[in-house]
Amino acid sequence: MFFSLASIIFLFAVIIPAAQGGKVLVFPHDGSHWVNMRVLVDELHSRGHAVTVIRAADSWYISETSPHYNTVTVDVAGGANEDFFRLFVSEVIKIKRSKGSAWSRFALDMELKNKFFELHRKVCEVIIDIFENKELIKSFQDAKFDVVLTDPANGGGVMLAHYLGLPLVFNARWTVHGEAHFAIAPSPLSYVPLPPSELTDEMTFFERVKNVCFYTMRMHLYKQVVGPHYSAVSSRYFGPEVDYFSLFQAADLWLMRVDFVFEFPRPTMPNVVYMGGFQCKPAKPLPEHLEEFVQSAKEHGVIIMSLGTLIGELPHDMADEIAAAFSSLPQKVIWRYKGDRPATLGNNTLLVDWMPQNDLLGHPKILLFVAHGGTNGVQEAIYHGVPILGLPLIFDQRDNLFRIEVRGAGKIMDIFTMNEDIFFQGIQEVLNEPSYRLNMQRLSRLHRDQPMKPLDTALFWIEFVMRHKGAAHLRTESYRLPWYSYHSVDVILLLVGVVLIILGTFAVLIRCLCSVCLRTKSKSDLKKLK
Amino acid sequence: MFFSLASIIFLFAVIIPAAQGGKVLVFPHDGSHWVNMRVLVDELHSRGHAVTVIRAADSWYISETSPHYNTVTVDVAGGANEDFFRLFVSEVIKIKRSKGSAWSRFALDMELKNKFFELHRKVCEVIIDIFENKELIKSFQDAKFDVVLTDPANGGGVMLAHYLGLPLVFNARWTVHGEAHFAIAPSPLSYVPLPPSELTDEMTFFERVKNVCFYTMRMHLYKQVVGPHYSAVSSRYFGPEVDYFSLFQAADLWLMRVDFVFEFPRPTMPNVVYMGGFQCKPAKPLPEHLEEFVQSAKEHGVIIMSLGTLIGELPHDMADEIAAAFSSLPQKVIWRYKGDRPATLGNNTLLVDWMPQNDLLGHPKILLFVAHGGTNGVQEAIYHGVPILGLPLIFDQRDNLFRIEVRGAGKIMDIFTMNEDIFFQGIQEVLNEPSYRLNMQRLSRLHRDQPMKPLDTALFWIEFVMRHKGAAHLRTESYRLPWYSYHSVDVILLLVGVVLIILGTFAVLIRCLCSVCLRTKSKSDLKKLK
Repeated sequence: MFFSLASIIFLFAVIIPAAQGGKVLVFPHDGSHWVNMRVLVDELHSRGHAVTVIRAADSWYISETSPHYNTVTVDVAGGANEDFFRLFVSEVIKIKRSKGSAWSRFALDMELKNKFFELHRKVCEVIIDIFENKELIKSFQDAKFDVVLTDPANGGGVMLAHYLGLPLVFNARWTVHGEAHFAIAPSPLSYVPLPPSELTDEMTFFERVKNVCFYTMRMHLYKQVVGPHYSAVSSRYFGPEVDYFSLFQAADLWLMRVDFVFEFPRPTMPNVVYMGGFQCKPAKPLPEHLEEFVQSAKEHGVIIMSLGTLIGELPHDMADEIAAAFSSLPQKVIWRYKGDRPATLGNNTLLVDWMPQNDLLGHPKILLFVAHGGTNGVQEAIYHGVPILGLPLIFDQRDNLFRIEVRGAGKIMDIFTMNEDIFFQGIQEVLNEPSYRLNMQRLSRLHRDQPMKPLDTALFWIEFVMRHKGAAHLRTESYRLPWYSYHSVDVILLLVGVVLIILGTFAVLIRCLCSVCLRTKSKSDLKKLK
Repeated sequence: MFFSLASIIFLFAVIIPAAQGGKVLVFPHDGSHWVNMRVLVDELHSRGHAVTVIRAADSWYISETSPHYNTVTVDVAGGANEDFFRLFVSEVIKIKRSKGSAWSRFALDMELKNKFFELHRKVCEVIIDIFENKELIKSFQDAKFDVVLTDPANGGGVMLAHYLGLPLVFNARWTVHGEAHFAIAPSPLSYVPLPPSELTDEMTFFERVKNVCFYTMRMHLYKQVVGPHYSAVSSRYFGPEVDYFSLFQAADLWLMRVDFVFEFPRPTMPNVVYMGGFQCKPAKPLPEHLEEFVQSAKEHGVIIMSLGTLIGELPHDMADEIAAAFSSLPQKVIWRYKGDRPATLGNNTLLVDWMPQNDLLGHPKILLFVAHGGTNGVQEAIYHGVPILGLPLIFDQRDNLFRIEVRGAGKIMDIFTMNEDIFFQGIQEVLNEPSYRLNMQRLSRLHRDQPMKPLDTALFWIEFVMRHKGAAHLRTESYRLPWYSYHSVDVILLLVGVVLIILGTFAVLIRCLCSVCLRTKSKSDLKKLK
């Protein structure tokens, strides 16, 4: 359907040796994940490291040329692309608004599942192509990379690092099996909600039941979606005894794109480093026309709205309801919107194709962020202390916003059912109830109060792995244990067995003793009778 | 036996308000633990915080006056004291050397257990005395402390923080129930050895059995030793529904006196901060006479030996064997020893009452540290990269040294059975086999390669808790769950129940259907027959 047969060409730049610093091989995850990886790549470059990025020829976000990195381009067609996800989002909106049948929702879910299936298939093709290209592999080996940096949302970097025998660092929030912590840290389901379950760390009994069911279902689904592809590659190149997921668990370091201002507290591991908000920066001055517009709001302040790159436009009637609600406000509004100009658009609302979101959020006049709930936007809002009115659409967006809502720093609305009035009331509530702003500012203070900036922390640990050729002393090998050993089931069975044997022996002994006593007694009784 | 009836006098200095900075109330654990706490107290003072330390009138290590802290002295006699432990160590040496009967060892263990029992009884008396002294409590409340800093090896600070409603920070390696991590982080016994079990994170099946048995036994013992005292205080002042140990688990922050160069990697929690080696400092120049002695060793280098403060002297024959072995070496030796001068002492050996251990370990001429394995000494050896020949005696010393031995950075010898030759061979091995020094230097490099100095990290987080009045966002509330909920046993039972009911219903339905079918069939057969 979406895919042509893979035609493979390798176009790769010469891997330039680093004059100073080390050499980093990056296998990113395409799409919005690259936005985050790019921050690390730029910072690695600025510290004198030579970075080589592997990309697909039809890459969605990763450009082939950059002053900050070399690229190795692999031409494998198919997989995920922006168009599919754009189309998918509009399908979701259509079905959810029309209160579409359970069947249409199920069909949509299956389509998404198939798309992810294809995405991982494509990654595996890329990997096989690389492994089979002896010349490329030799150039990788000759380049003597210090570390592989990858996003474990796909398994490409993991397989490549293992093949090349290189230390492995993750820029992670998800692995191919779901939320990243679940791959390495103990995660008792009684207080660790599996994202995106929309549960907190304090659950009622039935919420805990939901969490266990959700976990079982999701894990099964993920294994089904990704397992066959990666298993095949792993068996073919590393032998059938290697479990593909253990290669993920063997990573030296996990740089997590969360912190505990955003995420609920939960067990973690020594080789997990939190860099949530590493992409956030103090605001730069706004372009002149935006600054003028913002200042024209005077004491009323400004609201900004963005639903992310995937949701450039909305159905006309939805856009009209939103624009109408905005037009009734005394505030000025900056709305990132690529669709047709809504008929109800007020004079107070500026439509823009793109906006300097971080600089706007850091502007003192900004009162509210109307957002879809992508992790980057949420982190930026936390950093700058701007409360959120959330309009989640797909993926983990509702779950991200839920973390803000339960801290009282924002409010979620249902974009699929809301009208002008409901949206207006929502805006009024977050604007006029001071607790939203105060709570978000508290989160901001907590987030900013760190010994080092998250980006510096991340770079320190990448360079640590480069300096020491790994971080084996921070990593447990517990993932090598079979589940029954990991949970000490074998030990408990042995101990219970021993106790039972001892009790049994005692019981038999006592029985024997009793019968001997009885026999002796009856004999003496008999003697007496004689 | 060891205790007089508690006579209570409070002698407390005026709690001086901090001109700048905050106010810290410290409830330390007496003995060598105070050496560590003192480092934090001094640093807090140097950063402008006012520190108030609670001490017993007969305190073992904590002096009543200091330019760095005020004291509140509570006069409760009894509890642990240095003399007891000194006596205890010599008893251990006597019994172990004479290969004493199992009974004498058991009697010694019971004596130690009783001593710990009394130690905790005394802490609880101190706490009750404080709680009952309304004037003192009022002065604490008026002082408006920002935080309680305590060593959870006793429960005094924990109870006091809860009573005063203050944030709580631990300077921890042990709680009253054993190794500190076990109180808050998931600790799968399949790869987390319970110190001091002398097991690593990679265990055979029978080692795992040992670990589980050891855990069960130790937890039971600790609960038996400390439970009655703290339960009584907790019930009396906080109500019978409060489990005393949950007050430990509710601490805001755990500053752990280990890092993962020393400790095996294991699960941890967001509110655990590692400050292992926080007491280590670059070496200062040696006093003139020591520097001269060290330089006189020329190319042969120097060995230093210390068995800690508790072991000032050894039985004469043991000391003679050690001195004789030293006398055969080309190296110079500095031996911290308070006993009579051994008859076999060579010219190359300098006996000292006290030595600047950190400055010596940091001296380039020092080749080997003969040590008992106290945590402080081991951390200093790691910091300076000096291999260890370990002569453990009691407590966790063998387990600490074991961590060095399995990393190939030292060797453990049995002080109770060794003679001159064996000791000499041991020294030769660690001196001449380069891997010991190389491995320790590797550990040293890993330990020193941190984004911040451990002491600065510790202070940052204490001040963080002071700034934010706690660290609730880093702390799970999972300890409030009953064990069956924590481990989702209730949820699993429900789900299994539901599955069984569904299967049962199906079975009944199928049976009914079958019997209906059979009946219909037999009726029609009957009709046919008619």
